[in-house]
Amino acid sequence: MLHGGKGSGESTPRLPACKSAQVIIGVLGGTGPAGQAVAVQFAGIGIEVVVGSRALERAEEIVGSLKERWSGRDLPLVPGANETAAAADLVVVATPWEGVLATVAPLADTLAGKIVVSMANALTRWGTEMVPLMPPTGSVTVAVARALPASRVVGAFHHLPAGPGGDLEHPMDADVMVCSDDRAARQEVAALIDRLPGLRGVESGALGSALAIEALTPALLEVNRRYKTHAAIRLTGLPERDS
Amino acid sequence: MLHGGKGSGESTPRLPACKSAQVIIGVLGGTGPAGQAVAVQFAGIGIEVVVGSRALERAEEIVGSLKERWSGRDLPLVPGANETAAAADLVVVATPWEGVLATVAPLADTLAGKIVVSMANALTRWGTEMVPLMPPTGSVTVAVARALPASRVVGAFHHLPAGPGGDLEHPMDADVMVCSDDRAARQEVAALIDRLPGLRGVESGALGSALAIEALTPALLEVNRRYKTHAAIRLTGLPERDS
Repeated sequence: MLHGGKGSGESTPRLPACKSAQVIIGVLGGTGPAGQAVAVQFAGIGIEVVVGSRALERAEEIVGSLKERWSGRDLPLVPGANETAAAADLVVVATPWEGVLATVAPLADTLAGKIVVSMANALTRWGTEMVPLMPPTGSVTVAVARALPASRVVGAFHHLPAGPGGDLEHPMDADVMVCSDDRAARQEVAALIDRLPGLRGVESGALGSALAIEALTPALLEVNRRYKTHAAIRLTGLPERDS
Repeated sequence: MLHGGKGSGESTPRLPACKSAQVIIGVLGGTGPAGQAVAVQFAGIGIEVVVGSRALERAEEIVGSLKERWSGRDLPLVPGANETAAAADLVVVATPWEGVLATVAPLADTLAGKIVVSMANALTRWGTEMVPLMPPTGSVTVAVARALPASRVVGAFHHLPAGPGGDLEHPMDADVMVCSDDRAARQEVAALIDRLPGLRGVESGALGSALAIEALTPALLEVNRRYKTHAAIRLTGLPERDS
């Protein structure tokens, strides 16, 4: 997993990968607010990120605007179709929850053996209130794991607010709860998140934890509505990391 | 709600209520670890607490041991049957989740019109993993609200770890997510929690948030297992309180 990505087969020029990390990250649905936030976070620490979209033109447009917004940083962002993003070493699914299964299922072969990070939350507004929705699998992350039985599915980034997450000038102040049935994959993703400014990856159990982690997002949105803020969570009582 | 409690009809001597708060709190199932933690937290700030149990003798025994443990503090704890605890001004249901409905349903008349705080989490160990269980109402708190339609049901204290919560010498470092369909009740409970050392009440939406808040507890237990700690949550990004 730690060695360079497969060729994308696209004409988009490959940017030099950061020497401290050969991993290339692909973001499916990388043009939406959540996907853009994840993409700039990783690109901001020098990791090459393929911003994937159903429409390559859309990916090119978004990568252009992100590079323009952060023009002083030379972000290693590359546009691509979702199929290209899926060919990266580690893949984040940032599609809105309704589209997650339709997005990942046709890519199962490409995603086999890889860490696939699910970050979607099934939620809706019911009356005036943001509420979680319960998919038949209990969580979107478990649905992804069932759709990709040969992948190493990890839940993470569910609580990342898109606006602050996309703002590289103001590091966030948040823990990212990471869950997976694959302990090594969970550790790897948590360690990767530890490298992002202001974020800490917290290993939070197996995929059974995904229900709670996903459902917490609408509760945090209710906190935001009440206090007119972007709330995030921190876990207290954890030991200091060995960095 | 803010004026003195009904007489308990018991021979237990009434302790003088703290002048800063005439409210008396009853804890149903107050002899278990969760109930003891809540009871000593409130008693520690001078609020009279009726520690309720199905068996009065058990309540007397636990109150005796708590008063002995914190003998320098003269905690205003009073033992009582659950019926007596239910006659308090504000009532916390601290029974393990399996027993919550059987405990509250027969007390519906006594609890009518009052704030009733539900703190139970439906969870189990499945394989090696702590996982949430989903009652047909989506959460225990909503089940309590349905069983007590005339009460002002609030969800709170779900994440309070019993051990640290019962230790008055070491204030916790945690936010308490508070949810209710009754906004005034939610505010009142959050304000009450703000008075507890090291805790902050965070209004976290209506009862639709209870599913997430309750399900988060087994995820936190998984964090504890992983890091050998007692994790708690803090929400970041909230405005400072007006004290």
